[in-house]
Amino acid sequence: KNVICFAGKSFLTMAMCKIVEEEGYNLDVASMGELFVGLKAGFPRKRINLHGNNKSREELQFALKSKIGHIVVDNFLEIEMLRELTLGHKKQTSVLVRCSPGVDPHTHKAISTGQADTKFGFNIKDGSALEGIRQISEIPGLHFDGIHCHVGSQLLDNDSHLTAIDAMIDLMASVKKNIGLDCAVVNIGGGLGVRYLEEHNPPSAEEFAESLVGQLITRLDKHVLGRPVLQQEPGRSIVAEAGTTLYTVGSIKTVPIKEAPKKRTYVSVDGGLSDNPRPQLYEAEYSVLAANRMNDAAEKVVTVAGKHCETDTLFRDVKVPDLAPGDILAVQTTGAYNHVMASNYNKLQRPAVVLVNNGRAEVIVERETLAEIIKRERIPARLAGKSKRK
Amino acid sequence: KNVICFAGKSFLTMAMCKIVEEEGYNLDVASMGELFVGLKAGFPRKRINLHGNNKSREELQFALKSKIGHIVVDNFLEIEMLRELTLGHKKQTSVLVRCSPGVDPHTHKAISTGQADTKFGFNIKDGSALEGIRQISEIPGLHFDGIHCHVGSQLLDNDSHLTAIDAMIDLMASVKKNIGLDCAVVNIGGGLGVRYLEEHNPPSAEEFAESLVGQLITRLDKHVLGRPVLQQEPGRSIVAEAGTTLYTVGSIKTVPIKEAPKKRTYVSVDGGLSDNPRPQLYEAEYSVLAANRMNDAAEKVVTVAGKHCETDTLFRDVKVPDLAPGDILAVQTTGAYNHVMASNYNKLQRPAVVLVNNGRAEVIVERETLAEIIKRERIPARLAGKSKRK
Repeated sequence: KNVICFAGKSFLTMAMCKIVEEEGYNLDVASMGELFVGLKAGFPRKRINLHGNNKSREELQFALKSKIGHIVVDNFLEIEMLRELTLGHKKQTSVLVRCSPGVDPHTHKAISTGQADTKFGFNIKDGSALEGIRQISEIPGLHFDGIHCHVGSQLLDNDSHLTAIDAMIDLMASVKKNIGLDCAVVNIGGGLGVRYLEEHNPPSAEEFAESLVGQLITRLDKHVLGRPVLQQEPGRSIVAEAGTTLYTVGSIKTVPIKEAPKKRTYVSVDGGLSDNPRPQLYEAEYSVLAANRMNDAAEKVVTVAGKHCETDTLFRDVKVPDLAPGDILAVQTTGAYNHVMASNYNKLQRPAVVLVNNGRAEVIVERETLAEIIKRERIPARLAGKSKRK
Repeated sequence: KNVICFAGKSFLTMAMCKIVEEEGYNLDVASMGELFVGLKAGFPRKRINLHGNNKSREELQFALKSKIGHIVVDNFLEIEMLRELTLGHKKQTSVLVRCSPGVDPHTHKAISTGQADTKFGFNIKDGSALEGIRQISEIPGLHFDGIHCHVGSQLLDNDSHLTAIDAMIDLMASVKKNIGLDCAVVNIGGGLGVRYLEEHNPPSAEEFAESLVGQLITRLDKHVLGRPVLQQEPGRSIVAEAGTTLYTVGSIKTVPIKEAPKKRTYVSVDGGLSDNPRPQLYEAEYSVLAANRMNDAAEKVVTVAGKHCETDTLFRDVKVPDLAPGDILAVQTTGAYNHVMASNYNKLQRPAVVLVNNGRAEVIVERETLAEIIKRERIPARLAGKSKRK
């Protein structure tokens, strides 16, 4: 059996939870806030996994109270907290154990997670994973349900996954041999890449799944192990290409530069770092179209800049038609890690999110108002009421 | 005369506006949202400058209606919009003209702004600045009040500023000669660096100002020009070192790594990328203290990681005492570009901001609630009410 758990962190809204439920997927959450969103959307509790490398006691209590499917245990402190929090519990809480398989994926360092040098999970090689599972097996309130790993994000091949599967199934065998426990679930995380640029060519979900399942079965058979439930946690590969950001073109400016071709044209848009920090965080690149000029040849090379009071270059050297203020740029593949990472930098209001289905558009996140931006602010009495100087 | 304009973008809250006013500073804003905050705090309108490389028509209208001190005009599109928007205006709106002096500062590329290859301002060398000023001088509703530049941020020397001053005063002379206009104001922006690490040694505000004023006077005298008002726009250097972020230590984990010393200790805290994106955006480094262990020797080298579901390393290889869960880390110099850049990534609630004065602590930004995180969300009718499956 293969279970898809949507990685909520990539794009979590209540409307998205409804779609995830409709599709029959499970839901991954990575914090109390994400769990809160899932519950508020009425997502089936038993189909939710809670992640986190540093879950607080409060988060664990909230997860226990909410009776979710799995808590994915990351570290020994968490085991200690769960031991206390489940004291006297009759009902068992199912847990998976997050393991670090020691795989270095080919991706940006900020989205690599499976290497040994990581904050995530129990290291397999140094025996931490086995020891964590042993401790969990001795806690009456917990039910050990299986193992979990995640090697990285935006992977355009499956090399790292195949290596991780070997390490995970070897661990599964070791758990059986040393502790006598079966892994009902093996969760190999997400990581399948998407097409940001035309030249990106990620494997299809089918190709990806087939090669993984093949490797899994080979390795299971080698160890003479039964078939666990295979959980996967795609986020980006489900939602990224479904998203498009629309910007309106404002100021266009050609400036002299030192390098060839001795000039650069900056096209400034009505957003930037605050709605899409990925170019600055990960040197992410995107494909840019001129939505209202799709029939015009894209012959000009321009650099698209945001409107923030810093050098928030969004898209360097992209080809577009000859643009004018008011034109609409459609940036593709912004469904993942854009909306969820948005800030109010320079007090920009976070944009609306619109869901489009069969030609019908519905707002699922309203545009922020100016009033909302200052809603949490307070002026202490000692500073208030001094503003009549000039 | 020397006027200090606080660069609001670095830390803008209504309480801060009150302090800025009390100190007799002017206020720089970089968007309609920032202007809104200033006005809501009752900041004296005539002491506000509006910046922006891509001001919208709506922002310009709001600024005109609000009768602020200066609009800092950035580009020809803005001149056209102002021409229309001030048609028939009797009262003059004062403007400064943002110029690009073609100076490459020694700082991170994302916070360099004075180089020729920039989205900001009118290039001086190619004649754009002079042409912009000429066009502005012909608009009856506008009053040309002077010139503006900004070379970059977190500068630990003043080399770039001195070069920029030369370019700016040469432009001032050229404006006088070619258009017959005086610059009542010369605004040389901000940029003075702060001490993030012990080894950082920025010039003091006094040293910095003195060298700038010296250069300014030399250059003015060379061109036989009168003395303009000197405006400066410090943000970081006013507010960064006043800010401290407090994190609580959670999971502590030592993992094997390939390089010497063959192991790394990760200390995870209850925040991360969402409250301080600067380590990932700019490779920014910070000094970290153990607030509740100030008398213990800081002998352990650890890496502090956030709690986000990605590799959000905050502070690499910092020296701290032997920490335990529950200890408090105090991260210094987080007053600038932390609060204002915060996001809800992983649905973390943005932290409170507390103002401390003479031993008294007052909340000036309340901690976000879970309810606030989903306040803008809507579930379309076609998706609602399907959640009873399991």
